[in-house]
Amino acid sequence: MKVIIVGGVAGGASCAARLRRLDEKAEIVMVERGPYVSYANCGLPYYVGDVIKTESSLLVASEAMFRNMFAIDCRTNCEAVAVDRSKKTVDLRDTKTGAVTTESYDKLVLSPGAPSFRPPLPGIDLPGIFHVRTVPDARAIREWIEKGTAFLAGMSNYTGIQMVKPKRRAVVVGGGFIGLETAENLVHAGFEVTVLQKPPHVLGPLDPEIACLLEGHLQRNGVQLVLNDGAAGFKQAANGTLEVQALSGKTFPADVVIFAIGVRPDTTLAKSAGIEVGERGGIRVDEHMRTSDPDIFAVGDAIEVKDFVTGRWSLVALAGPANRQGRIAADVIAGRDSRYRGTQGTSIIGVFGGAAAWTGVSEKTLNRLGDTDYEKVYLFPNSHAGYYPGAKPIHLKVIFRKSDGRLLGAQAIGEDGPAVDKRISALAMALQLGGTVYDLEEAELCYAPQFGSAKDPVNFAGMVAANVLRGDMPLSHWGETEGRLLLDVRDPAELVLESVPGAVNIPLPQLRSRLGELPRDREIHVICRSAQRAYYATRVLLQNGFTARTLGGGMLSRAVKAVAGAK
Amino acid sequence: MKVIIVGGVAGGASCAARLRRLDEKAEIVMVERGPYVSYANCGLPYYVGDVIKTESSLLVASEAMFRNMFAIDCRTNCEAVAVDRSKKTVDLRDTKTGAVTTESYDKLVLSPGAPSFRPPLPGIDLPGIFHVRTVPDARAIREWIEKGTAFLAGMSNYTGIQMVKPKRRAVVVGGGFIGLETAENLVHAGFEVTVLQKPPHVLGPLDPEIACLLEGHLQRNGVQLVLNDGAAGFKQAANGTLEVQALSGKTFPADVVIFAIGVRPDTTLAKSAGIEVGERGGIRVDEHMRTSDPDIFAVGDAIEVKDFVTGRWSLVALAGPANRQGRIAADVIAGRDSRYRGTQGTSIIGVFGGAAAWTGVSEKTLNRLGDTDYEKVYLFPNSHAGYYPGAKPIHLKVIFRKSDGRLLGAQAIGEDGPAVDKRISALAMALQLGGTVYDLEEAELCYAPQFGSAKDPVNFAGMVAANVLRGDMPLSHWGETEGRLLLDVRDPAELVLESVPGAVNIPLPQLRSRLGELPRDREIHVICRSAQRAYYATRVLLQNGFTARTLGGGMLSRAVKAVAGAK
Repeated sequence: MKVIIVGGVAGGASCAARLRRLDEKAEIVMVERGPYVSYANCGLPYYVGDVIKTESSLLVASEAMFRNMFAIDCRTNCEAVAVDRSKKTVDLRDTKTGAVTTESYDKLVLSPGAPSFRPPLPGIDLPGIFHVRTVPDARAIREWIEKGTAFLAGMSNYTGIQMVKPKRRAVVVGGGFIGLETAENLVHAGFEVTVLQKPPHVLGPLDPEIACLLEGHLQRNGVQLVLNDGAAGFKQAANGTLEVQALSGKTFPADVVIFAIGVRPDTTLAKSAGIEVGERGGIRVDEHMRTSDPDIFAVGDAIEVKDFVTGRWSLVALAGPANRQGRIAADVIAGRDSRYRGTQGTSIIGVFGGAAAWTGVSEKTLNRLGDTDYEKVYLFPNSHAGYYPGAKPIHLKVIFRKSDGRLLGAQAIGEDGPAVDKRISALAMALQLGGTVYDLEEAELCYAPQFGSAKDPVNFAGMVAANVLRGDMPLSHWGETEGRLLLDVRDPAELVLESVPGAVNIPLPQLRSRLGELPRDREIHVICRSAQRAYYATRVLLQNGFTARTLGGGMLSRAVKAVAGAK
Repeated sequence: MKVIIVGGVAGGASCAARLRRLDEKAEIVMVERGPYVSYANCGLPYYVGDVIKTESSLLVASEAMFRNMFAIDCRTNCEAVAVDRSKKTVDLRDTKTGAVTTESYDKLVLSPGAPSFRPPLPGIDLPGIFHVRTVPDARAIREWIEKGTAFLAGMSNYTGIQMVKPKRRAVVVGGGFIGLETAENLVHAGFEVTVLQKPPHVLGPLDPEIACLLEGHLQRNGVQLVLNDGAAGFKQAANGTLEVQALSGKTFPADVVIFAIGVRPDTTLAKSAGIEVGERGGIRVDEHMRTSDPDIFAVGDAIEVKDFVTGRWSLVALAGPANRQGRIAADVIAGRDSRYRGTQGTSIIGVFGGAAAWTGVSEKTLNRLGDTDYEKVYLFPNSHAGYYPGAKPIHLKVIFRKSDGRLLGAQAIGEDGPAVDKRISALAMALQLGGTVYDLEEAELCYAPQFGSAKDPVNFAGMVAANVLRGDMPLSHWGETEGRLLLDVRDPAELVLESVPGAVNIPLPQLRSRLGELPRDREIHVICRSAQRAYYATRVLLQNGFTARTLGGGMLSRAVKAVAGAK
């Protein structure tokens, strides 16, 4: 059996290595159009920022390693340019010489990836405008930055006087993973960084009120965010620097521009070969990673995957799923019945010490699909026991099925990155195994004062959600309070800082003795800072015959909603 | 309904607060024999070490809060001294005045905890010998340390010359959680610390080869460990310091002694009331937390719980389970059908920046129960992507059912504490939901270069284990190699540092061309550093008609086993 694998990074490389382990006799050819196989593209923003110092550390496995350890015919600088499905051949072009050879295959695996989207804007090819997709891209940015530094340093030496070095400016177009990670690295490299993001919030998969918290964190760390505005074109200014022309008409001077508005599945080869491409623009495969041609498989960022929660086709460019898909394609080619279960989309981004992470479906997506069988809770637990120094709040949103309590999705953000990671990873595991909020109540995660709380944020989320589903805590959300009586159970001292117009204030400790002040014919929505005391108050009211609801997330979620809504 | 809750810390306090939320009309009396309710006993070692600076931060909720927020009749310094089950009354003694009153109950909840075990050794009551169970205990240790410091500082001032301050010595008797956490804190406080541990390794729930790694970490950080040796008695030396006399006959001088050999369920009241106590020495309860008397419930460290994996009765003194049990007792008293699912025993201990953590059953316990339907894998993945700075190895042991792949337990240790926490917490969630190693293969945890790898350690564990169960990687373990041919596939340069006597060396890249050198009539056990290359080699051998097994964990687990075995 001869297998040709097109693409030698995450999905392709995993497929090749796994296939060799399963089939010692197969002839395996792996071609990669770039100069490197199996490189760490997730590390590129950190190579730009010199957090990762040497290029060689990005090269996870070499061409030689694939040849020596796995007996794989590994060819870099080799591009697949055409597939003849009837003859079962691929045309391979040597990107250095241009020479084209034709190779036959029994099975073909496509793992071409998803290049950065680069629309034909005026000036987009000017020097100083980069994207961050390959090792050579990152190297070019480093060299460009280095050159600028040398130029300024030379000026300073020449004049012989201490110059006030003007801060260099970077514009990052796009507020997704790569954009934000690169923005952080450019801040650390001493740039004044502006991020232009056409959508109304950064990081598309997040819901706006959670993204909004990350935006605040970025701004507090010196990133200038321009939302609802994209790049219209680029110009070279008189002094040699660049000028980014925004859709709004504004202009932004820049010494370097990073273009990172997202990726698009590379379907060129698939389309030219007549292989089915889905409505989301990725190669369509079945659960065995098989395309519309039974001898051709596809894996990685170029394919459409089934969303684990919604079952809908989706585009998810993540390294973990790509690796597992490569493995599954190899299994199937070797005659096994492995199946891909779909992608949860679990992700994390670390910026300025904090992190935002998520798994499963967002509320935004459920709304788009018209799915109303869900409820959500917001909570703000500490990263670890409050009595141990260094605890920082985690802002956590958990989405679950109203009908059966099944976990649907979770989003979190906080200044303690590993604490965010722990909770979303545990929730991702629960979601994968069909866990419910009742399971989360009983979860037994690691606890010591440095690492968590006796009631972990995951337990706490389960308890709050289960309280809602069991009817112990009827819930309402900001925006649903029109015409309702608002009862604020915080201490008067807390109201000085921020209060809700029209809300009645009865501090929780006085509530039982002041019930007579409240009407029995109106629905009372109870407010406090985080909704914990409001829940206690709701219990008191319900058991005394009042109609009451807890305002989910309390004042903490109100503030965020207000900012997110105002944009 | 009148409910008396005996004990106001984790389980009792959770029960009281939950019960009030469920039943606004119940009369709830919560009594605590000590001066504080709801205090953070997990924080006490850190208060001893001044990581936690103020005593007030350990007091999570006050008596006043229980009275004002929850309308609970909360009484501190109040001890329950007798229960009359026929009359349904409890005798309560005011520990300050000695006055005894009798209170009736409809339901009684026992949450007396588990005091430190303090055998009547000669000299155990000498000044300078402490345990770490309550806030006053920790305060007394701080004062003792403070006094010593003041004395030395005074000496220095008096003589007017710069004295070489002799380093003060602490002996910690007991190598469990409290012992090791306090040991770390005393090192930070400038003590020379010796830990005496009677069992052959620290932290009983761990398997010896994993505990051994923690022991190395403690020793590298200045803790002197004395295993297989306990305290026989204590003496006051001529210079006023203490002397710990060990069972071995050795003596250890000490300026302070911490006695922390474990806890024992407090069953005094339960036994005197004729309530059933189990064979492990804890109060016996059903899944509703009900004791042998249907009107009496018990929760927390004083009860026996069902082990989640083995189904056996077990004693587990952990804050998380205690809180959940308190909640469940309240639910049941309020007429709900809540059930406790058993305890996984998930735990973590952070010491000197690193951590050891575990969930589920140990191999030791399976062996004790004669359960042979299990297999184990060892692996040594990085805490995060190797190309991103600061990655540190995690030593991970995963135990699973041989017959169906179900996860049974996991143990991990590493210098990156949060990375250990993340993996054991995710594995704990998988174990809770009945996950298999095949589920771990497909797990989608958070990945970015700072937080993990595209193939997370959890995926990697699932893949290795599934390879074993699918027969792709027949496994052997150190100690099972007698009479087998050992094949070492590492590079010759690696053998210089450490090699296995009698092993044949064929580096992996040469294996395919040198198969003729290997016998077809013997079982070949393949070795490398971590077992990854050995797995690749095993695949080559199996597919070429050889009989081969991979030596699990490779040289890395051999070194540890050797040390653990030699003790």
